[in-house]
Amino acid sequence: MGFQKGALDPFPLADLVCRETNMKSKGQRVGVVVPLEVEKRKKPDAVARLQTLVDRDLDDVNDAIRASMASAVPLIPQLADYLISTGGKRLRPMLVLAAAQITGNEDRHHIYLAAAVEFVHTATLLHDDVVDGSELRRGKRAANLVFGNQATVLVGDFLVSRAFQMMVKAKSLRVLDILSNAAAVISEGEVLQLSSVNNVETTEDTYLKIIQAKTAALFAASTQIGAVISKATAAEEDALESYGRNLGIAFQLVDDALDYSGERAKLGKDVGDDFREGKVTLPVVLAFRRGDETERAFWTRTIQDRDQSPEDFDHAMELLARHDTVEATIDRARHYGKIAADALAIFPKSELRDVLQDLIEFCISRAH
Amino acid sequence: MGFQKGALDPFPLADLVCRETNMKSKGQRVGVVVPLEVEKRKKPDAVARLQTLVDRDLDDVNDAIRASMASAVPLIPQLADYLISTGGKRLRPMLVLAAAQITGNEDRHHIYLAAAVEFVHTATLLHDDVVDGSELRRGKRAANLVFGNQATVLVGDFLVSRAFQMMVKAKSLRVLDILSNAAAVISEGEVLQLSSVNNVETTEDTYLKIIQAKTAALFAASTQIGAVISKATAAEEDALESYGRNLGIAFQLVDDALDYSGERAKLGKDVGDDFREGKVTLPVVLAFRRGDETERAFWTRTIQDRDQSPEDFDHAMELLARHDTVEATIDRARHYGKIAADALAIFPKSELRDVLQDLIEFCISRAH
Repeated sequence: MGFQKGALDPFPLADLVCRETNMKSKGQRVGVVVPLEVEKRKKPDAVARLQTLVDRDLDDVNDAIRASMASAVPLIPQLADYLISTGGKRLRPMLVLAAAQITGNEDRHHIYLAAAVEFVHTATLLHDDVVDGSELRRGKRAANLVFGNQATVLVGDFLVSRAFQMMVKAKSLRVLDILSNAAAVISEGEVLQLSSVNNVETTEDTYLKIIQAKTAALFAASTQIGAVISKATAAEEDALESYGRNLGIAFQLVDDALDYSGERAKLGKDVGDDFREGKVTLPVVLAFRRGDETERAFWTRTIQDRDQSPEDFDHAMELLARHDTVEATIDRARHYGKIAADALAIFPKSELRDVLQDLIEFCISRAH
Repeated sequence: MGFQKGALDPFPLADLVCRETNMKSKGQRVGVVVPLEVEKRKKPDAVARLQTLVDRDLDDVNDAIRASMASAVPLIPQLADYLISTGGKRLRPMLVLAAAQITGNEDRHHIYLAAAVEFVHTATLLHDDVVDGSELRRGKRAANLVFGNQATVLVGDFLVSRAFQMMVKAKSLRVLDILSNAAAVISEGEVLQLSSVNNVETTEDTYLKIIQAKTAALFAASTQIGAVISKATAAEEDALESYGRNLGIAFQLVDDALDYSGERAKLGKDVGDDFREGKVTLPVVLAFRRGDETERAFWTRTIQDRDQSPEDFDHAMELLARHDTVEATIDRARHYGKIAADALAIFPKSELRDVLQDLIEFCISRAH
């Protein structure tokens, strides 16, 4: 299975690929943007290569996902399918499959687990969209706008329960323990995020706690359970957990940077959603701290008091550029990416290990 | 621990107790309403007696519930506590404890399971309140009005994940299988209910499917897992599952009848909620079928088209009375109550068995 553009395109921003010279020396990078159509013929990106390596398993995961969406209540497959079948990156399932594969998995239980984490992720997106009042998701109208908040909440609950059913099928109490803990951490993170939503004085540490919980916990659980189901050694399990967690942090940092990226508009995604919703992400955390009193008053008015006029977003973008906080956010992502890469180093060199390491840089370079 | 009025009062309508003569002969009952203060001194009701029999375990369950609500994010215990600590009937946890006790349970795992089912139930109530836009719950302003829909959805998710964590603590894959299946059935039932919400032509069969899913499935899982955790025989497990399921159906039928009960207003509960939300419950299903064309047009306008004026509820009450459909709903409840009672009959006579059987009639007589 090759990397397909369109519906399955896992990182649409890869349409623009940044070739960088001197990647590791901060401040001296020169980015040249070239269309992916040209780039892809030369070398498939890390996600496409990962898809190829877990190809057969991924087909089975997609079968399990489709089977688990089935219900005698027509609204359930309609709504679930709206989000799952069309826009899914399948990044988290692929992490389960890759972690199982790199630790020599021999049975098929990881298929259910990979499908389960995708359902947990999708349920989170559905509830997020209701909570945030989102208008776009994966380039389409958000499910809450198409099906209503009521159905979106309830189908989210359904997907969580289906995920739980699939996890039980893998028959591992250890795995269930890891996933139930991750689920609790995720929802705790969502509430923490809601509690901090308009607080411009949120610290970088609190911000990190939120993204560790709401994003990195499921990445970490995905790679860890892949190891557990293969009966990997403790060292391998720890390495994969660390890889997943740090990749997840880097991924979310870049995602939050992208919300202030001009490129994003080309992808049919909402730009400036976080700003309009008063979500305090790292670009704003840093701009508030680095700014002067006038600038802080601007952030307080627009984010804390939610008193925004249409031209405020452009001014926000200027302030972020003035203090280089989008770039600083991506630099922070690089830090966690390096930890993820080193965590994997205990595994013998293999194509899969290489791809997992390249995946880190691929996630980060989405921002360029 | 005796039966306490107020916060822990499990069936507030028991303030009025109906003493009936000739209970089993339909159509000849004579109800005499007397204040519970008089009645209670004579004979404690079934819930109070059940509480006494599972007293020590119930204290442990309450400790487990409080411990599991804890979080470093203050909004979580605030919101969870708003609903759990003050208004909880603890009916489902008591069913877990009773089923474990009647089958000779010897370990403490059932404590976690009892707390877990209460969390699942509470999460369902929170999401229901958001979906229904409820204004009152257990005599207080509904959580969604106090804390907002966003927090209510997310804390509901948190409680589900905490429930899942507690279930895993009981270390039984069989129990996890039962509970994950119940969770899926419950959420499927919620979506089915939403899909049928304004359809006045809903059949009694579809209505039954909905209440079996959204209410009886958790009752059945509660009694079944109590048996499983005690390593009961298959016959005992089946008996308890059947008891729980049929009790749950009867319970919900009576609940739906109560929504059209004049007595309900005295309890600080919303009366006519189902009518105003266009929920088609059995009293309306039967009234629509038994009514003439003019009456059906009334139901279509008020329920299907949601075109209601303030006096419509009184007219709806008249139509229900004309066709005796509230009483018919309670009669249906009696049918399921009898199945529940007979299911228990395989257990040797004991005080606990007697109380569980009396609990059925207690649930049903709430309606008088």
